[in-house]
Amino acid sequence: MHTGTPVAVLGLGLMGSALAGAFLRAGHQTTVWNRTTTKADDLVARGATLAESPAAAIAAAPLVVVCVSDYDAVTAILDGALDGRVVVNLTSGTPSRARALAEEVVRRGGSYLDGGVMAVPEAIGTADAVLAYSGPRPLYDAHESTLRGLGTGLHLGDDPGLAATHEMATLVLMWGMLDGFLNGAAIVGTAGVSATAYLSIARRAIDTVAGWLPDYARQADNGSYPADDGTIDTHLAAMAHVVEESESLGVNTELPRLVKALAERAANAGHGGSGYVALMEQFRKP
Amino acid sequence: MHTGTPVAVLGLGLMGSALAGAFLRAGHQTTVWNRTTTKADDLVARGATLAESPAAAIAAAPLVVVCVSDYDAVTAILDGALDGRVVVNLTSGTPSRARALAEEVVRRGGSYLDGGVMAVPEAIGTADAVLAYSGPRPLYDAHESTLRGLGTGLHLGDDPGLAATHEMATLVLMWGMLDGFLNGAAIVGTAGVSATAYLSIARRAIDTVAGWLPDYARQADNGSYPADDGTIDTHLAAMAHVVEESESLGVNTELPRLVKALAERAANAGHGGSGYVALMEQFRKP
Ligand SMILES: NC(=O)c1ccc[n+]([C@@H]2O[C@H](COP(=O)([O-])OP(=O)(O)OC[C@H]3O[C@@H](n4cnc5c(N)ncnc54)[C@H](OP(=O)(O)O)[C@@H]3O)[C@@H](O)[C@H]2O)c1
Ligand SMILES: NC(=O)c1ccc[n+]([C@@H]2O[C@H](COP(=O)([O-])OP(=O)(O)OC[C@H]3O[C@@H](n4cnc5c(N)ncnc54)[C@H](OP(=O)(O)O)[C@@H]3O)[C@@H](O)[C@H]2O)c1
Repeated sequence: MHTGTPVAVLGLGLMGSALAGAFLRAGHQTTVWNRTTTKADDLVARGATLAESPAAAIAAAPLVVVCVSDYDAVTAILDGALDGRVVVNLTSGTPSRARALAEEVVRRGGSYLDGGVMAVPEAIGTADAVLAYSGPRPLYDAHESTLRGLGTGLHLGDDPGLAATHEMATLVLMWGMLDGFLNGAAIVGTAGVSATAYLSIARRAIDTVAGWLPDYARQADNGSYPADDGTIDTHLAAMAHVVEESESLGVNTELPRLVKALAERAANAGHGGSGYVALMEQFRKP
Repeated sequence: MHTGTPVAVLGLGLMGSALAGAFLRAGHQTTVWNRTTTKADDLVARGATLAESPAAAIAAAPLVVVCVSDYDAVTAILDGALDGRVVVNLTSGTPSRARALAEEVVRRGGSYLDGGVMAVPEAIGTADAVLAYSGPRPLYDAHESTLRGLGTGLHLGDDPGLAATHEMATLVLMWGMLDGFLNGAAIVGTAGVSATAYLSIARRAIDTVAGWLPDYARQADNGSYPADDGTIDTHLAAMAHVVEESESLGVNTELPRLVKALAERAANAGHGGSGYVALMEQFRKP
């Protein structure tokens, strides 16, 4: 009935439960543990084995996936020996903590992959779910087929901090996009337009902006910011309108104000006539 | 040689030149005017007629497209009679100024459509360029085939302010997305990763987030924010990490700080256990 590597999943919050469920669907013998035991009930009904401690779960499987709230919880859970275990930590955190944990796991006899889940729990187990991993490439290759049960895997490099670095970066992008969408929905809402009606135009705007990114990325890498498609000064005029009108509409102005302050700084640094990517220099500064 | 309605384009900046060029390619007899005359040279070489004043350009064509820096420039240009003219104003501005200008144009014998260009100049004349219009539906219908030469047209409603409202909303979304991308590129840059290398994961993140929006829009409209895919408290923990680590990496922290401040406010309002869309209530507030 079970195929492939036995796995253990520590942490059965929204994400951990989805990970364990995907392993079960992929046919892995799956041992689970969670601080609050009742969260395992549904998974046990679907064939998972409940371990009575993190150490018992770790003893039950060579591949141990950890997904809890934060690194303090991870270190609280991983307090015993890890001989021969592969720890795949999918808890969000910082690159420096990922690197420190990698050393700690190796010191205790295990090996370590860090990962960032760039998907919602419902997508886990489908190709739509992207999980970015970092750590020793041979270790990733050895477990790629098991990890594929969770979604599309990408190996970013040997430095265990890289997954967290990329996760941080995509989180900022995600929040910028989500806050921009919700702020936009609040703006059209003042004209009686629903967020659902706004969606079609928002989706086109997203596709349009996504289409600019290959060129913008090249500009960021080259440090040259041609104004072929509009200058920072033109953006600034529009930003001033949006702040002013948001005020008179009575919606939040914080995001447009920040966007404007950053663009003003770029203009003051001599980039008023440059393209938007000149802002990159502001983001690189503390 | 010329087919369709004769058109006039007032304002030959980056966008106005692209609009006039698209009309020429679509076979329209195109009259152009720009404050700085030399910007018309290329278009004249391609068959456009240069008018010596805005009034002369307006006299030359029943459909007059205006695309200059701001509304002050628009009103400076449109100072004469407009009998029987259709003014299509593609200058970015606020809904209130669009409504005021619509009244003014009608008072002077013309009719008025407002529009927002949601594309870069290079895309103008292709279906990829989206232009959103608002104003009397029959007027839009009568000129739709001409306007189609500029790109994909969307009519949003009879209120002439609606295009500006939607443009403001999509600008905030666009800036949120672009600033998020550039901030993310600055973060991965600290690990020696290029913006171009970051791009593939950023594009996947964008697709993922775009896939959530139909559901998020529904939640925003319904005012119920289920936490199926993660709570604001979980986001807050990640936001704190990102701010902290951005500081230690020496990159800009303003965008993650704002994102965090907004989420904290939502949590303080009792939404720590709600889904991300609960933030909508913050964006609706001044
Ligand atoms: N949800 C998403 O959409 C999503 C997306 C990408 C990444 N992530 C990341 O995935 C991780 C988990 O997120 P989630 O959504 O599953 O969060 P969650 O639903 O809030 O679950 C948190 C989990 O952590 C456990 N935990 C917290 N403190 C603990 C401690 N001191 N000792 C032992 N266990 C502890 C909780 O146990 P109890 O049940 O006993 O409280 C629970 O299993 C986070 O790092 C998050 O950033 C989530
Ligand atoms: N470029 C884009 O990607 C883009 C995208 C969407 C929307 N838009 C909107 O399109 C509009 C034009 O943008 P753009 O990129 O074409 O700007 P631009 O390249 O800076 O051109 C500005 C134009 O406005 C004219 N102008 C400014 N003040 C004037 C005045 N007082 N009287 C007469 N003419 C005046 C300029 O004439 P001179 O040549 O004599 O200076 C020039 O033709 C803006 O509202 C912008 O927000 C642009």
